[in-house]
Amino acid sequence: MALARPQHPHPEPAVGGWGDSAQVPELSEPVINLLRDGLGIEHPPPRGEIELPARRLDDGAISALEAIVGGEHVHVDDDARLAHTGGRSTPDLLRRRAGEAAGAPDAVVLPAGHDEILELLQACTERRIAVTAYGGGSSVVGGLEPDAAGFTGAIALDTRRLDALIGLDEISRLATLEPGLRGPQAEQLLGERGYTLGHFPQSYEYATLGGFAAARSSGQASAGYGRFDELVMALKLATPVGTLAVGRAPRSAAGPDLRQLLLGSEGTLGVITELTLQVRPKPEATAYHGWRFDDFAQGTEALRALAQDGPLPSVLRLSDEAETALNLTRPGAVATAGGGGALAIVGYEGTRADVEERQTGVARVLERHGAHFDEAAGEHWVSERFRGPYLRDALLDAGALVETLETACFWSALPDIYARVTHAIRHALTEQGTPPVVLCHISHVYATGASLYFTIGCAQAADPVAQWRATKSAASDAILAGGASISHHHGIGRDHREWYEREIGELGVRVLTAVKRELDPAGILNPRVLLGVCSPRPWP
Amino acid sequence: MALARPQHPHPEPAVGGWGDSAQVPELSEPVINLLRDGLGIEHPPPRGEIELPARRLDDGAISALEAIVGGEHVHVDDDARLAHTGGRSTPDLLRRRAGEAAGAPDAVVLPAGHDEILELLQACTERRIAVTAYGGGSSVVGGLEPDAAGFTGAIALDTRRLDALIGLDEISRLATLEPGLRGPQAEQLLGERGYTLGHFPQSYEYATLGGFAAARSSGQASAGYGRFDELVMALKLATPVGTLAVGRAPRSAAGPDLRQLLLGSEGTLGVITELTLQVRPKPEATAYHGWRFDDFAQGTEALRALAQDGPLPSVLRLSDEAETALNLTRPGAVATAGGGGALAIVGYEGTRADVEERQTGVARVLERHGAHFDEAAGEHWVSERFRGPYLRDALLDAGALVETLETACFWSALPDIYARVTHAIRHALTEQGTPPVVLCHISHVYATGASLYFTIGCAQAADPVAQWRATKSAASDAILAGGASISHHHGIGRDHREWYEREIGELGVRVLTAVKRELDPAGILNPRVLLGVCSPRPWP
Repeated sequence: MALARPQHPHPEPAVGGWGDSAQVPELSEPVINLLRDGLGIEHPPPRGEIELPARRLDDGAISALEAIVGGEHVHVDDDARLAHTGGRSTPDLLRRRAGEAAGAPDAVVLPAGHDEILELLQACTERRIAVTAYGGGSSVVGGLEPDAAGFTGAIALDTRRLDALIGLDEISRLATLEPGLRGPQAEQLLGERGYTLGHFPQSYEYATLGGFAAARSSGQASAGYGRFDELVMALKLATPVGTLAVGRAPRSAAGPDLRQLLLGSEGTLGVITELTLQVRPKPEATAYHGWRFDDFAQGTEALRALAQDGPLPSVLRLSDEAETALNLTRPGAVATAGGGGALAIVGYEGTRADVEERQTGVARVLERHGAHFDEAAGEHWVSERFRGPYLRDALLDAGALVETLETACFWSALPDIYARVTHAIRHALTEQGTPPVVLCHISHVYATGASLYFTIGCAQAADPVAQWRATKSAASDAILAGGASISHHHGIGRDHREWYEREIGELGVRVLTAVKRELDPAGILNPRVLLGVCSPRPWP
Repeated sequence: MALARPQHPHPEPAVGGWGDSAQVPELSEPVINLLRDGLGIEHPPPRGEIELPARRLDDGAISALEAIVGGEHVHVDDDARLAHTGGRSTPDLLRRRAGEAAGAPDAVVLPAGHDEILELLQACTERRIAVTAYGGGSSVVGGLEPDAAGFTGAIALDTRRLDALIGLDEISRLATLEPGLRGPQAEQLLGERGYTLGHFPQSYEYATLGGFAAARSSGQASAGYGRFDELVMALKLATPVGTLAVGRAPRSAAGPDLRQLLLGSEGTLGVITELTLQVRPKPEATAYHGWRFDDFAQGTEALRALAQDGPLPSVLRLSDEAETALNLTRPGAVATAGGGGALAIVGYEGTRADVEERQTGVARVLERHGAHFDEAAGEHWVSERFRGPYLRDALLDAGALVETLETACFWSALPDIYARVTHAIRHALTEQGTPPVVLCHISHVYATGASLYFTIGCAQAADPVAQWRATKSAASDAILAGGASISHHHGIGRDHREWYEREIGELGVRVLTAVKRELDPAGILNPRVLLGVCSPRPWP
């Protein structure tokens, strides 16, 4: 039963790009100069002709899928298959641009709801068809490319038809929503009723609620609204062996928190078909400001003070000196004078009184830490906050390699992680003959620690995917060696799997593999994402 | 390596009672009258002579344990065995009082640390000895009575020698502590260095950090400091198949949150040997107040307003009319005039400025909801907050059956859960010829819901354990039927297992059983606590 569904269709992103191709900016003169003079980039790289692999699933298999969801909801055409080939990581885009689409699914299947998904998973188990649950396609860690090795074929299970606001409990401030809703669709449905999730990651315009949950997304306003995993009060999962529904109260002492076992499972244990999420009244007031510190270390101390002793703004970020100088908080004005020092973006959302009160309290703390107010910087940031991925498209077009990666650690480890990861990236790329620009910001804060988000730019090498891989590997080694987590909010996918296994150790891998075996005995769900083959008991 | 260890020994609680028997109060005249005239209680019940079962483990097994921890750390004497027979639930105490100690462990083993625990678990796996990890002995849900059925014997693995403060990271505000520290010991070690955990459940004086983690404890000041599971940033678990160490950052998107799978596992997956916990500076100021509402419904609305829109005090509780009238927030003055309406206890801990600011803001909200200030009630509550369990001892001595049980649900369900559970308890006990007093309070609040805590008093029937069982069963059925969770902070143990299995469903049970099989292949860890035999694949 749906209370409401969105009125706008789900636009298809451009192949080899982030989203709507009309939104890819022209590069400005200063950026073009930077690419040429700073990074030594001469020409745009060649584009390849896309070649889709032959379909592996035979007509019998396709008919079986059609029998479940209806013929019009199984797509085997090239456009649909290509649109569901992988996600939006830099190597995903580079491969598409080179014409490579070897990981295309054989079919795109669009079920209507939970029961059809249960049936699909049973049918795919029987026929040994790999299934990738596909929402907004915004994974940047290789979480979405179907891997059919060992299977008869692979499908993308696109959740876009699960797009209902099912219920709104205004007393408990809970909304029950379907997972295929994209960020703006969910906000529209809730906004009409006076509520918001407050969840605005950079992927917001494309990513879906199911993806936010499956990959533990963290929104830009996480200091105010919490991470997505903190908003999930209940969820329903369709698995090959049945339904798992968890969550009867905000918190409970009824055993392990199974919600936290399913969140972050990235489509490997089942398909999320329903989410009950904490909502808040739409903010009466918002304010975004910039604050400038002498340097990143000084700003880091100020953020820690706010995270530990308050008051906490809703958004709290701090660019290092390099990112500040390059003006990266304004994707539309990159490489124009960003100013000196380290720029923090501080945002508030809430009632008028609350926003005003927190502004006063936060200003007092930041001034005590030596910061200077920069009003315009906050408004610039908020107006361009979702434009970064389009800038990446333009830079890839021009021949730059652009990558972002992130981690989280405790406060005491942060300066060391910052230094290690920056050094590892710089060293790996310089060794390959493409010295980079490395930028960093603190993007999310907690009482005991924070996340670090790195942006890398350099010239594309002859084989940019290999160049990326060597660099990613060096950065990931540095993250692990420093004791930090391999991801704060991007997730694991396939790109982080090797380091994830080191992070959680052999027993951690065995525990999760045991859970997967129980819920997905044939191993059809997103094979080799999150978990590979478990060494003590080879599987599948 | 220990930074510090506590200087005070771990006192043994009285058999059949909560703790130090010198602290059991004499019942006041009004309570004696209430028992006689209100509940029809005539005489104290008889006490039985304790009979310990014969030891099942042979000398070879005992020698093997001694070889690991040293002879002086294996106790097979009656006192030690009896002191580790079960926890402190009402039926546990009733059974001990009746002389029953059939569940006594064969030996009490006190390892020195993680490595000895690993060795013990391997030895017990080989010899099929059941192992119950034993901290403060304060379980009230049957989580601690060793169950040796199907094993060669059972030991209590007492963690008291794991009592070090291992490290303090003042930048990240993290303390690494061993699990055998009791609440006051941990607070002393941290307090000397200026910090607090802020975790004060009613069991505080006896319970250990390991128990808080293993059973998802929630302190009375959870609104201010968070639940215990929210304080755990990292933990180390010794299992029969090796070590599992999780937690590298406050939050992470590196797959499922394995911390949340181990928290609440109640000694069934391994023994927690190290905890890294968020700490706060010791509060500069504290203030506790009472606020009186016309009725429970009005007060509930006020608590919801604070939980959803703030400001949040550190402690926020609300007694219903019956609990208020009986003055239960003052265990030392029960059954004297508690006054009318519904009494809330509102506490603040923090800096002077923060405590003052929140007081003003909270007062504004409470007055808007019709509450009247009652200064003394707060101070009374805080001074007697850990006395409740001693009052239970005195009441059991006098012939009353006293039980507490609790649940959590979303706000919209709360009035219905309150009505259902109250009715179920009253009906079950009246049917048995012992009409009860049923009292309730809201003890913990969240934006989307709250917990309800029920206190029951009536005359003991001829078989008080059977009387308890029928009542507990009726209350638990009502909790499940209303969609609430079977426990907010007491945990599952054996007493809640039947309802827990209904709450998480067949697949939930299978998932956890799969994890248990992986970490504890011989099923030696706290058998039949949390999980029973999993129906689809009988086990062990």
